[in-house]
Amino acid sequence: MLKIGPYEFQSRLLLGTGKFPNYKVQKMAVDVSETQVLTFAVRRMNIFEPSQPNFLEMIDVSRYKLLPNTAGAKTAEVAVRIAKLAKASGLCDMIKVEVIGDPKTLLPDPIETLRASEMLLREGFIVLPYTSDDVLLAKRLEDLGVHAIMPGASPIGSGQGIVNPLNLSLIIEQAQIPVIVDAGIGSPADCATAMELGADGVLLNTAVSGAADPVKMALAMKLAVEAGRYGYEAGRIPRKRYATASSPMEGMITS
Amino acid sequence: MLKIGPYEFQSRLLLGTGKFPNYKVQKMAVDVSETQVLTFAVRRMNIFEPSQPNFLEMIDVSRYKLLPNTAGAKTAEVAVRIAKLAKASGLCDMIKVEVIGDPKTLLPDPIETLRASEMLLREGFIVLPYTSDDVLLAKRLEDLGVHAIMPGASPIGSGQGIVNPLNLSLIIEQAQIPVIVDAGIGSPADCATAMELGADGVLLNTAVSGAADPVKMALAMKLAVEAGRYGYEAGRIPRKRYATASSPMEGMITS
Amino acid sequence: MLKIGPYEFQSRLLLGTGKFPNYKVQKMAVDVSETQVLTFAVRRMNIFEPSQPNFLEMIDVSRYKLLPNTAGAKTAEVAVRIAKLAKASGLCDMIKVEVIGDPKTLLPDPIETLRASEMLLREGFIVLPYTSDDVLLAKRLEDLGVHAIMPGASPIGSGQGIVNPLNLSLIIEQAQIPVIVDAGIGSPADCATAMELGADGVLLNTAVSGAADPVKMALAMKLAVEAGRYGYEAGRIPRKRYATASSPMEGMITS
Amino acid sequence: MLKIGPYEFQSRLLLGTGKFPNYKVQKMAVDVSETQVLTFAVRRMNIFEPSQPNFLEMIDVSRYKLLPNTAGAKTAEVAVRIAKLAKASGLCDMIKVEVIGDPKTLLPDPIETLRASEMLLREGFIVLPYTSDDVLLAKRLEDLGVHAIMPGASPIGSGQGIVNPLNLSLIIEQAQIPVIVDAGIGSPADCATAMELGADGVLLNTAVSGAADPVKMALAMKLAVEAGRYGYEAGRIPRKRYATASSPMEGMITS
Repeated sequence: MLKIGPYEFQSRLLLGTGKFPNYKVQKMAVDVSETQVLTFAVRRMNIFEPSQPNFLEMIDVSRYKLLPNTAGAKTAEVAVRIAKLAKASGLCDMIKVEVIGDPKTLLPDPIETLRASEMLLREGFIVLPYTSDDVLLAKRLEDLGVHAIMPGASPIGSGQGIVNPLNLSLIIEQAQIPVIVDAGIGSPADCATAMELGADGVLLNTAVSGAADPVKMALAMKLAVEAGRYGYEAGRIPRKRYATASSPMEGMITS
Repeated sequence: MLKIGPYEFQSRLLLGTGKFPNYKVQKMAVDVSETQVLTFAVRRMNIFEPSQPNFLEMIDVSRYKLLPNTAGAKTAEVAVRIAKLAKASGLCDMIKVEVIGDPKTLLPDPIETLRASEMLLREGFIVLPYTSDDVLLAKRLEDLGVHAIMPGASPIGSGQGIVNPLNLSLIIEQAQIPVIVDAGIGSPADCATAMELGADGVLLNTAVSGAADPVKMALAMKLAVEAGRYGYEAGRIPRKRYATASSPMEGMITS
Repeated sequence: MLKIGPYEFQSRLLLGTGKFPNYKVQKMAVDVSETQVLTFAVRRMNIFEPSQPNFLEMIDVSRYKLLPNTAGAKTAEVAVRIAKLAKASGLCDMIKVEVIGDPKTLLPDPIETLRASEMLLREGFIVLPYTSDDVLLAKRLEDLGVHAIMPGASPIGSGQGIVNPLNLSLIIEQAQIPVIVDAGIGSPADCATAMELGADGVLLNTAVSGAADPVKMALAMKLAVEAGRYGYEAGRIPRKRYATASSPMEGMITS
Repeated sequence: MLKIGPYEFQSRLLLGTGKFPNYKVQKMAVDVSETQVLTFAVRRMNIFEPSQPNFLEMIDVSRYKLLPNTAGAKTAEVAVRIAKLAKASGLCDMIKVEVIGDPKTLLPDPIETLRASEMLLREGFIVLPYTSDDVLLAKRLEDLGVHAIMPGASPIGSGQGIVNPLNLSLIIEQAQIPVIVDAGIGSPADCATAMELGADGVLLNTAVSGAADPVKMALAMKLAVEAGRYGYEAGRIPRKRYATASSPMEGMITS
């Protein structure tokens, strides 16, 4: 069970809603993923314009917890403004803090992310900052009181997977709050790896929406997150340099 | 659908039966894995001694295709002798050729593996050789007419996972017969990686039987093989150096 | 030529002076390394106590630029105090900012590192902050006006080498000031890798002082830094999936 | 000192002579590399046609040991024929056995390589087979009596570097004869890594001849091989998960 603030989720896969080929494929992908948390860029949603088509109208919003993000913000102030817009819609009180510091890498700005998180906590939001895998920055965010930390695996949409398993595992080890690996996931194996490191969940978008078959990939990701979680809980065998027979021959009566 | 010789399988996970804590755990692990192929060392099975307890008695053998292996053989001749013993039991006509060249690494002897495979094909067996990830050796085995190739990911029981994804992918690319990644798997992510490379299946044993909770790990492996296969079929996004926004801001009417 | 602030160095290897077996080995290692920058913890040096033995007395200090570090500081204020102590000795005006946020990983505290750097720049120091490989934090430090950035390869003394080559290369790509890879180097190959990524230098200590033969390892590191730098300048071949004959046979008149 | 059969070499870098931009660059690269062993494809050399220009005429052949290779051979018989041609020139009695099994990967054919090696040993050659990193195949070759084993790091000319450090280190561990890592080297760091694994030497060609500046890259490779060798001999520090202070603060009298 994944607990974020007051909410509990059976699913540990958080799904972004950007860039699907069309609403139908998106809805099918969301369905088979069995996600319970949908994230989206507030600034891309016409949540105040009922005349505009909108993905949120296509789905049964009551079935999902919505996690709007502040994509587009370069400063804490803008991020807070976007978050308030989202909350004003009445649809959500969780916010993914996303303050980008560089348009080429879309990596988060650590200082503005910290500031935005602090400001949003004061406003009563359930705050989930997207951050780098800087271990001490994650600690700072936790000390502020954020409700989950979302370190990136690699740059957004890059599909590079988990570049730095060491830092992710150090963040997980130190955290008392959920750690959701966010950004950079490319394939199911990346999801499984994140979960085997002990992550509490995975957030991804492009890896599904940009796949040749987004619906099948959504299924693959769902299964991979479960596989990785069970694998983590089941306690894997140690890595060894040399072999160990699975069918040892010692002490056998041989023909 | 995985086809090996005349047989078809829904499951792409082949499970070894060695070194489980006890028969009950083993049976539960086999059940949740949903495997359809069980492999075991002929020399460890008392298949001709009905008075001895035996795992094969505990399960409904009719539900599984049995894949005995020739573990313990250091030469082609011994491997053939073991294979014939297994066939004489009437339980199976598939054989996993396993001719070990070194007790420390348990890596296969390429020449004896080739010879044993050739001899067993002449005897009418369905032949699945366990081999190294040598690309040309895999080609030689296929040219002989074996029914599947089983390159190792890393030394048996080492849990090191896929050390050489390049060779595995080259073997998969050239093969017209099934490629089952065998040996060295440590965790669900390893399974997913193998399947994403395009493997037709995964054979593992210690990663499940040696886990702290073998039954949960069997479930994890089942899910990971499925996740990796669906991921392969779904067509993953390319890896890129730089980021790509999942929520692009271009062309938006912003507040 | 490595330029840091007003100083120029032929050597791109910066060497730490901690934990050598004895002063004689240390001196020999420093000699063969051909380093021109020696770093040391101010708090470990008895620079104000002439009665105490001290490594700095053993060497010809005029031959080296000294780079004291603020190890032991957990806050910007303490770091600044340590830096001023060092400067007061008259031996140096460069300072390696080292503000540790966690005793287990010895990873730097990003906020205090930023603050300390800002304060020390105002005091007129040549400032080289030891930082994580967070790309945006490195940018923030550069924007402050620091004279070089020193991102860690992995935790201090861990010997894990370069865990995240992506982030290091992004930092190098964006920087207009020297990037010195600091901390975590384990072997010559790690040095070569750092330099091939385009780093301007490498700072290491334990990899030499903790080697079985520190003097020989100092020589190895010197050569590796040069090899990596020349390799970077020489322009390596691209990585390709398939082979390319070095002795192509096309168009040949064959026997 | 590298000993191959009756020969001793100070340099552990073996250099191929294919595909340099021109003879002048090639000669300069050979010079700065300080190699003592030059390898070349017999079939590309017009060693019997004095009217044709030929790299071997440009250099002082007496300074180098020549290591012709059998590139172009797909069978043992052709390899032996090529080797005899080379020997008949009176220039060399060493031969690099290169029997390629696949034109796309240029990976060696294990069976023909074994056969060719056996035949050439009977003919009195100093035999250095280029082989895959199959551990047991390397053992077979050593058992035949070859004078060095040359496992590939990755496909020829691919620049992928050392894909499987495990197999290389297992080959090195078991071998009583020199192990020269051959093929796939892309950069100085790859050389250093090979040598740190304990290899006795490195053979490369495209990484130098195909570099933007082949002469500078030749120098880089020379330094990297030395760095890696010294690093191996010097005994590196172990890899650890957590940090170790190079400037420990325990027991210090602090200000």
